[in-house]
Amino acid sequence: VTAGLAPTLAAVPLAATYAGVRASTLALVAHLDPEDCNLQPMPDASPAKWHLAHTTWFFETFVLAPFAPDWQPVHPAYAVLFNSYYNGVGAQHPRAERGLLSRPTLAEVRDYRARVDDAVAALLAEAPRRVADEIAARVELGVHHEAQHQELLLTDLKYAFSRNPLHPAYHAPPATTGPRAPGPLEWLRFDGGNVGIGAAGEGFAFDNELPRHPVLLSPYRLASRLVTNAEYRGFIDAEGYATPAHWLADGWTTVQREHWRHPLYWRQVDGEWLEFTLHGLVPIDWTAPVSHVSYYEAQAYAAWAGRRLPTESEWEHAAAGRPVAGNLLESGVFHPRPAEAGGTSLAQLFGDCWEWTGSAYLPYPGYRPAAGAVGEYNGKFMNGQAVLRGGSCLSAGFHLRASYRNFFYPPDRWQCTGIRLADDA
Amino acid sequence: VTAGLAPTLAAVPLAATYAGVRASTLALVAHLDPEDCNLQPMPDASPAKWHLAHTTWFFETFVLAPFAPDWQPVHPAYAVLFNSYYNGVGAQHPRAERGLLSRPTLAEVRDYRARVDDAVAALLAEAPRRVADEIAARVELGVHHEAQHQELLLTDLKYAFSRNPLHPAYHAPPATTGPRAPGPLEWLRFDGGNVGIGAAGEGFAFDNELPRHPVLLSPYRLASRLVTNAEYRGFIDAEGYATPAHWLADGWTTVQREHWRHPLYWRQVDGEWLEFTLHGLVPIDWTAPVSHVSYYEAQAYAAWAGRRLPTESEWEHAAAGRPVAGNLLESGVFHPRPAEAGGTSLAQLFGDCWEWTGSAYLPYPGYRPAAGAVGEYNGKFMNGQAVLRGGSCLSAGFHLRASYRNFFYPPDRWQCTGIRLADDA
Amino acid sequence: VTAGLAPTLAAVPLAATYAGVRASTLALVAHLDPEDCNLQPMPDASPAKWHLAHTTWFFETFVLAPFAPDWQPVHPAYAVLFNSYYNGVGAQHPRAERGLLSRPTLAEVRDYRARVDDAVAALLAEAPRRVADEIAARVELGVHHEAQHQELLLTDLKYAFSRNPLHPAYHAPPATTGPRAPGPLEWLRFDGGNVGIGAAGEGFAFDNELPRHPVLLSPYRLASRLVTNAEYRGFIDAEGYATPAHWLADGWTTVQREHWRHPLYWRQVDGEWLEFTLHGLVPIDWTAPVSHVSYYEAQAYAAWAGRRLPTESEWEHAAAGRPVAGNLLESGVFHPRPAEAGGTSLAQLFGDCWEWTGSAYLPYPGYRPAAGAVGEYNGKFMNGQAVLRGGSCLSAGFHLRASYRNFFYPPDRWQCTGIRLADDA
Amino acid sequence: VTAGLAPTLAAVPLAATYAGVRASTLALVAHLDPEDCNLQPMPDASPAKWHLAHTTWFFETFVLAPFAPDWQPVHPAYAVLFNSYYNGVGAQHPRAERGLLSRPTLAEVRDYRARVDDAVAALLAEAPRRVADEIAARVELGVHHEAQHQELLLTDLKYAFSRNPLHPAYHAPPATTGPRAPGPLEWLRFDGGNVGIGAAGEGFAFDNELPRHPVLLSPYRLASRLVTNAEYRGFIDAEGYATPAHWLADGWTTVQREHWRHPLYWRQVDGEWLEFTLHGLVPIDWTAPVSHVSYYEAQAYAAWAGRRLPTESEWEHAAAGRPVAGNLLESGVFHPRPAEAGGTSLAQLFGDCWEWTGSAYLPYPGYRPAAGAVGEYNGKFMNGQAVLRGGSCLSAGFHLRASYRNFFYPPDRWQCTGIRLADDA
Repeated sequence: VTAGLAPTLAAVPLAATYAGVRASTLALVAHLDPEDCNLQPMPDASPAKWHLAHTTWFFETFVLAPFAPDWQPVHPAYAVLFNSYYNGVGAQHPRAERGLLSRPTLAEVRDYRARVDDAVAALLAEAPRRVADEIAARVELGVHHEAQHQELLLTDLKYAFSRNPLHPAYHAPPATTGPRAPGPLEWLRFDGGNVGIGAAGEGFAFDNELPRHPVLLSPYRLASRLVTNAEYRGFIDAEGYATPAHWLADGWTTVQREHWRHPLYWRQVDGEWLEFTLHGLVPIDWTAPVSHVSYYEAQAYAAWAGRRLPTESEWEHAAAGRPVAGNLLESGVFHPRPAEAGGTSLAQLFGDCWEWTGSAYLPYPGYRPAAGAVGEYNGKFMNGQAVLRGGSCLSAGFHLRASYRNFFYPPDRWQCTGIRLADDA
Repeated sequence: VTAGLAPTLAAVPLAATYAGVRASTLALVAHLDPEDCNLQPMPDASPAKWHLAHTTWFFETFVLAPFAPDWQPVHPAYAVLFNSYYNGVGAQHPRAERGLLSRPTLAEVRDYRARVDDAVAALLAEAPRRVADEIAARVELGVHHEAQHQELLLTDLKYAFSRNPLHPAYHAPPATTGPRAPGPLEWLRFDGGNVGIGAAGEGFAFDNELPRHPVLLSPYRLASRLVTNAEYRGFIDAEGYATPAHWLADGWTTVQREHWRHPLYWRQVDGEWLEFTLHGLVPIDWTAPVSHVSYYEAQAYAAWAGRRLPTESEWEHAAAGRPVAGNLLESGVFHPRPAEAGGTSLAQLFGDCWEWTGSAYLPYPGYRPAAGAVGEYNGKFMNGQAVLRGGSCLSAGFHLRASYRNFFYPPDRWQCTGIRLADDA
Repeated sequence: VTAGLAPTLAAVPLAATYAGVRASTLALVAHLDPEDCNLQPMPDASPAKWHLAHTTWFFETFVLAPFAPDWQPVHPAYAVLFNSYYNGVGAQHPRAERGLLSRPTLAEVRDYRARVDDAVAALLAEAPRRVADEIAARVELGVHHEAQHQELLLTDLKYAFSRNPLHPAYHAPPATTGPRAPGPLEWLRFDGGNVGIGAAGEGFAFDNELPRHPVLLSPYRLASRLVTNAEYRGFIDAEGYATPAHWLADGWTTVQREHWRHPLYWRQVDGEWLEFTLHGLVPIDWTAPVSHVSYYEAQAYAAWAGRRLPTESEWEHAAAGRPVAGNLLESGVFHPRPAEAGGTSLAQLFGDCWEWTGSAYLPYPGYRPAAGAVGEYNGKFMNGQAVLRGGSCLSAGFHLRASYRNFFYPPDRWQCTGIRLADDA
Repeated sequence: VTAGLAPTLAAVPLAATYAGVRASTLALVAHLDPEDCNLQPMPDASPAKWHLAHTTWFFETFVLAPFAPDWQPVHPAYAVLFNSYYNGVGAQHPRAERGLLSRPTLAEVRDYRARVDDAVAALLAEAPRRVADEIAARVELGVHHEAQHQELLLTDLKYAFSRNPLHPAYHAPPATTGPRAPGPLEWLRFDGGNVGIGAAGEGFAFDNELPRHPVLLSPYRLASRLVTNAEYRGFIDAEGYATPAHWLADGWTTVQREHWRHPLYWRQVDGEWLEFTLHGLVPIDWTAPVSHVSYYEAQAYAAWAGRRLPTESEWEHAAAGRPVAGNLLESGVFHPRPAEAGGTSLAQLFGDCWEWTGSAYLPYPGYRPAAGAVGEYNGKFMNGQAVLRGGSCLSAGFHLRASYRNFFYPPDRWQCTGIRLADDA
């Protein structure tokens, strides 16, 4: 983890940044009922309340416990209850049983947050010089950790709400400005060559973006925008889910075992296609990007289309230097939007949907995880997952950058994931 | 279902009975948080909120819908969401996903109850003569149904709380009046012979208690009280859980697969035996009856002790004519208590713990379930379960009687179940 | 276990009986390939070779080891490999892994049989007087045990062959003598009353048939023959498998989970109904009894037909005193046959199909299992199973009697099981 | 697939090569019993008989059916029974049920082989010029396919035998020539740079080795030999299996769920470490390479040792140009041997154990699978697996080369897999 601040964070004092991010997390759940915040619809999707507590535990464990004089744990059981997977700092409550924790209540967790926030603020104001850099680095890591959990909180809640036949809406849909018709998919060429990949050394980065290293890229092409729902429906109508030739073997096995016939949140009701969203169950906007597809579906769609997914290096090389802008969490839309009609090159790079790449999540050459429990943040997950790039409509903008590597398992669909096609030039 | 009222119900108008039972259900959850009421720790254990709604659905579906003029469903989705298992009235929300229903909220379910209660009260006041008996019979059935769910609500919540490392207490323990030392276990002899078994025709009974029929009983003996925790610990200390000779084959398989070493809620902490109760985690009262044991454990304990479990006919013959009194729900204790020292014969017959019998839950000769969906109440469960008798500390007294047949699967342990030994005379 | 011999065994010396039964087991597999004899298609269905070895282990363990001077185990590992479930004599090879034992080979198991047979013959010839009765009793138990495994060997092999798309035939079909049209189903009335149930004390019986005891039976009626395939098809055509009202709750769950739509071995090929049999895949004989149905299906069929299954006491009372005759193993037909047209009362009582009763498999009043490991033969299985009566076309005739209690779990279908209807009189 | 022949195949006519490889497969099972050849101990491990038939099906389906005039299938059911995973040519018998196919018998499968072999020989002798190249390419592919299945046949049989408490030996151990003490582990440095990776265009290669392409390698080091059993025991003794810090998250989950404490075939008996091998259960040779470890174990060992696994490019660059020699299938040893004492650089590159690399099995840049069903050979498996390099003691030498990419899932242990350490230079 580099010690510096990300560009959008650098302009503000760290204490204000901390306070702002923490407050924005609470704002996400301000209108929810306590029952909403306790739902765990599958082991991978944690209750909102747990996210509120775990992010707090992160600061308590990695900032207050080592650095705040005379810090007393808020509750002796929280060290286990809200530890996600850090074996280096002790045991963990079973992941699949987070939804059984009606206690502490939502009110108690809010109080936990307040007490930790007060202590972090005090520490940032008074920390002795010799540890200030280390404290700042850890608080910054925790701020980015909190941004990750803001997104997870929303995707987990969306999945939980999707299992309720009442189709609860998390948020009212934004005022529409009329349908947008994204232009035709264009192909943009990149020469490749010997390019630099990985965090460039300025601003915050996770350890998995390091070290920066050279990669050889053959000339390649990227699609100018994400695959739309209409285009994906073409795959469905062409019997894509019934044609094994398009699929990876593991993908085909999953399609059959899980009876997949469409993206996770599509529903066919009385002949009409609907989609469950954070606005409730609504008609599918065919011009918007397809979302909540697995790596298997992304790969099968690309095979059917005669293309392929980009590698993570191809994606990063194309994105390097471009502004982090788009339909992000701060847009308040909470759902992917269609690309701008007649949009310029490489629309939807940041925001809207995380983009599956064809790259396995593996360490960069020379990668070494950080020492101690914080080193468990990324390195131990470098197996069996695929890399995603770019961020989604649920990602905070300050948290994204061209070198950012997200990762999920090939069958995962509950994240806001989409497809950008690539091809050899 | 007989049309009459149970003795303790007969003295009060049905409307008052209805109102009283419904209010007592709400009283059970008055001090709980919304998150507490939404927990589903396993498919068999439903959220408290679901119990509140399902019992309301029962009156709406079987009383208001057929009999209340112009009744409009409170919500169109509730017919499915809160149908437990009545195929005759339509589809059911998946049992294992009741805990995912954060909506309707607890407040909305309270409102649902209020609206149905108002309508039932109005119907009872105004029902035309020709359907009054049928309405009364169904309301009475619903009242007993509600009593069953009061007990389930508490046992399900207990199980949910038991999975929380914070050991939440549902209720403060009662003021103790000093330890009680139950007297030695005595054996009471019954001659048996050709005896009548089943509901005798006066007062309410479920259809599974009918028809009354003759049974031949050889002379037998029953223990004067339930097996205590101390006695059961003798079985544990004698390697009872490691000795297959005591166990039914299915029981032994379960012991090994589930790693059973003691009753469900016992915990060994730093060498001390504790027990999770509705009062939280407390030291085991060795003089109290052992509770939360499965049929397998009850049978194995009896085999180890050189005895057997009573048949349901033996139990009923012994209990017939005795007063329904003991440590029941209305005691407010919420946990089994030791038998009275020097107690009279057959202590703890009603209340404290449901008593496993050695009888399979099967139809009585000549049994026919009621017509229509209400006929699904009991008959279709007559397979693979064992009969329990007597009621527990979580059973409402008006709801119990000597002919009452409760039933659970042999491995079930989350109900308040105990052991009374029997033997041939 | 009573010491006497069954009627058909009494006339011959025990040594000749032993030799005959043992030879008849080998005859059942004489024409099979070694691969056939090693198949284990599910944990419940053991390889034929394992049956050959286990029955031998039974005599080695319970007869030779305790009584034959200087007996040396044929192989030290066999004590574990071929112990089925007798915890009292040591550990068991995992049941589900019997099919992984290519060694010992079939030839080696034949040799194992020969060596044990020689030793048993010698022991029977020379046993000292003081232990002769105990040896005789155990050999007789082993002979009946072998008969049980002859049937299991065939049903397990049938199930294994049914999973092979080549539809192997175990045996050529018997020469047909033209189709038989069983007469209409008649109803026979029995007065019941206080009747004696259980083995009467003459001839061999298992311990679970004891003690003989009185039972009160109301007047009842039994169908004159088994339900035919044609009658059962009526249930299917009436959407029986899609109508939950006919089914026990556990049965309905099983129907849905297992996608049951017909009896185990029925197949619909190009619109024609076929049935897998020990003669291969053949057109269904609609006049023959339906076979390979579970307890759930038997119960659902009876409910649909407006009848019920008999209790085991009703069945035994009706069968008492009738000759054990019918389509049995020694017929060499290996499949149920239609009832005689215009047949007399209670056709197909013995042979053709085991008949599900509505009775749970429980101990008779006063039952005590035998001491020692032999006591595990029956008692520990008295849970969760239903009683079947009468024997099948795969049962040896000498092994059957009116008081015989067979037992399987409600979802089991791989035994040759059928349906006889009953009703109140 | 390139059309040319591998170096060691080029010198002999294809017909002779075909005959030789086919005969060598039969030789592997010549001494086995039919029961041995039918075992399927887990879904991934097929019966030897199935391997014999499937490799034959491959020639029948891809060579005879399209090219042999008037070819009639040997049996109409074999097209499905012995199709492994080629959706492009039709349905497949369920993988997990291959062990239930006692029919066709081993003798019938031998006959199937003979008939196909005759037809392939005739076709090779008489094929018209215009299709000769395509036929030759497919026969060559089938020959290499057969070599793969020779290895699988042995590893699957080893796994099956390992589940038998009798510890059957496949083969007598070779005459020992005294223990070998491998020298200390040395580190060999490679400069890396822009190197060429992938099949170089001469000799046979699978499509997954293409296209050859440039890769940038930083300077790196490789261990001079495989990790020995003694060294791996150091990891065990240092609590390696109890220390999550060494493990990938998925690996740690697997260790706990599967209770891994040592390599797959190690056994601790009376305090002594033994190993199940194709020679039976024998004392562990501590100087031999550790084998039958998963990717997870290989990675954890490397982490504990402060090193890492090589990438597949690093391995291939180091191996390029070296002779394919070592302890291979033709050695007749059937087990890894210790490295030569004082051995030269990079001992055990080929043979002994497949070497896990840290590379995910993914397509090379520009990879396109072959058209038609043969294209399913490799491409669809490029997900979730790790690449292994070098071959094992069960691999035929003619079948190996520096660019060969084997692949298995991270938890797989039943292949003959070992560990070579790498590090940054």
